[in-house]
Amino acid sequence: MADDFVVDERIAGDSMAIAQWPLCQVRLMDDARFPWLLLLPRRPGIEELSDLGDDDLALAMRETKRAAAALRRVAPCDKLNIAALGNVVRQLHIHVVARLVDDAAWPGPVWGHGRREPRRASETQALVARLQAALAAAQ
Amino acid sequence: MADDFVVDERIAGDSMAIAQWPLCQVRLMDDARFPWLLLLPRRPGIEELSDLGDDDLALAMRETKRAAAALRRVAPCDKLNIAALGNVVRQLHIHVVARLVDDAAWPGPVWGHGRREPRRASETQALVARLQAALAAAQ
Repeated sequence: MADDFVVDERIAGDSMAIAQWPLCQVRLMDDARFPWLLLLPRRPGIEELSDLGDDDLALAMRETKRAAAALRRVAPCDKLNIAALGNVVRQLHIHVVARLVDDAAWPGPVWGHGRREPRRASETQALVARLQAALAAAQ
Repeated sequence: MADDFVVDERIAGDSMAIAQWPLCQVRLMDDARFPWLLLLPRRPGIEELSDLGDDDLALAMRETKRAAAALRRVAPCDKLNIAALGNVVRQLHIHVVARLVDDAAWPGPVWGHGRREPRRASETQALVARLQAALAAAQ
């Protein structure tokens, strides 16, 4: 994979890498309000999902599906929210969020809703371990 | 394509069909604030992007990319927003929105932002004609 792939500073500050897949780096958002993964296709300079070639796009979506399956195994989920927005951080990143009908932002979107609530270190450690096991097992 | 594909009432009320593609029906949201397409994979009963089989998912994304290219040809666009949320309407629909850095909701998401502003009939007619030409031409 390209050596010149660098994670945007803001994404790096708000989330942590928990898996490296063939195309994407999988990251966990550090926000206790929502079970929330980010997938970053490791293609330098790409900002739009539609800038990916068809093969990369199909792979990105298979990996998104796999991440969604893992997230649902670890967190309760009434509805998945999957999105590539990039209004604030341009580097292409795909959000995979497990939503609950009584979560902090329901039925609105999570983006721009209130403030991120960082998890306690012990909570993060336990969640990352469960997620990594689920991500490894997900097809 | 399946005969039992029916468009959700709320989607039908807020948007109009402007193209039928191999997998998706393409619809234009009737909201003058944003150039905004919806793609509805014509698979009855599907609510999550991740419920599509890998082939359907790849096709849905190729059609999304094609719709995005057409939208950009017709509307100014600083950033695409592509998303499958479904918190309000469960029937699977993919949003493709052309965002501008000075649009009504920037940099926030369009969903749940203020009220939809229906276009005038003449404006709709002109836009649909341009979009249909661009959708037909888009690869």
